[in-house]
Amino acid sequence: MHAPAIETLIEKFEQLPGIGHRSAERIAFHILERMSREDAESMASVIIGAKEKIHFCSICQNLTDTDPCKICSSHKRDRSIICVVESPEDVSAIENTNEFNGLYHVLHGAISPMDGIGPDDIRIKELIERLADGSVKEIIMATNPTVSGTATAVYISKLLAPFDVQVTRIAHGVPIGSDLEYADKVTLIKAIEGRQKM
Amino acid sequence: MHAPAIETLIEKFEQLPGIGHRSAERIAFHILERMSREDAESMASVIIGAKEKIHFCSICQNLTDTDPCKICSSHKRDRSIICVVESPEDVSAIENTNEFNGLYHVLHGAISPMDGIGPDDIRIKELIERLADGSVKEIIMATNPTVSGTATAVYISKLLAPFDVQVTRIAHGVPIGSDLEYADKVTLIKAIEGRQKM
Repeated sequence: MHAPAIETLIEKFEQLPGIGHRSAERIAFHILERMSREDAESMASVIIGAKEKIHFCSICQNLTDTDPCKICSSHKRDRSIICVVESPEDVSAIENTNEFNGLYHVLHGAISPMDGIGPDDIRIKELIERLADGSVKEIIMATNPTVSGTATAVYISKLLAPFDVQVTRIAHGVPIGSDLEYADKVTLIKAIEGRQKM
Repeated sequence: MHAPAIETLIEKFEQLPGIGHRSAERIAFHILERMSREDAESMASVIIGAKEKIHFCSICQNLTDTDPCKICSSHKRDRSIICVVESPEDVSAIENTNEFNGLYHVLHGAISPMDGIGPDDIRIKELIERLADGSVKEIIMATNPTVSGTATAVYISKLLAPFDVQVTRIAHGVPIGSDLEYADKVTLIKAIEGRQKM
């Protein structure tokens, strides 16, 4: 029913997470009816600019505009602890608690054979490489408390058995079945404090 | 906490309707973590392209990629009836019922003194101009059944009194207080069928 350029715009927004057809339509009409040409161009250039400036940290694999990222290159962080998470959003969530002062490792996913995601499809190799110099004493597995997140934690803990490093799991204060990034600060603090040896 | 390029990206999406901070963050990370550079560039160019191709129809003021728009230039439409709506979304909603065969006029808003929107801020003048040749016999006021939508309908019906044109209001089958674009097809059909002389 809409002109092709409107349909294409709606489709682009529908592909984004959490946006259904109705929301995509609203957003498209908002851009076409209410945003100035300059605002639309600015939005487009911000998308391209972010994609150009932001890349993965060569150490922790988190999204960053420097390399190494600010956390990996900070002298104030405890370099003996690495907190392993599934996604950059999880790093943000833990950083917002202001309770964790170690380093991170972003796997960019979790092992899920059902979805065809095996150990080589997430950044486990890069984690193992970080243990080479022996400075890391503890790995906190902070993957999501879901089937795939737990499987990933167990898989990595077995893989790390030969290394002289303690592997811990965040306490299940984080409600089972939910997504780590939606946990509130207190729950996340409790989860980090109550971590158990694996 | 995020890199400036990520913050700017989040802010851009937060400005869109129906997207809060959390959703904007999710979308930004999705673009940075999961979309390819090509996909991001394609999204940016679709936004710019839509803004370039889509403009307001010089007759009905709806969003269009041709001028006049497809509805205004169609020989199959009844040119004696104009359905006046607040937004392009409302045209889509009524078109989806396949029950209305007249023309449209999009006001791009409603009179709302509280928000500083007066009669000159919406496209009423363009509606009046369409009555000059005397071919229009009926104007259906299909503005939203809200305070400002009703005020707009009343204002326009008074303005049209000197003209030889019947002004009708869609029946209040559309639930009062809601937005016209969210009405289901049957409700919209009933509303158009049950229209009353104003």
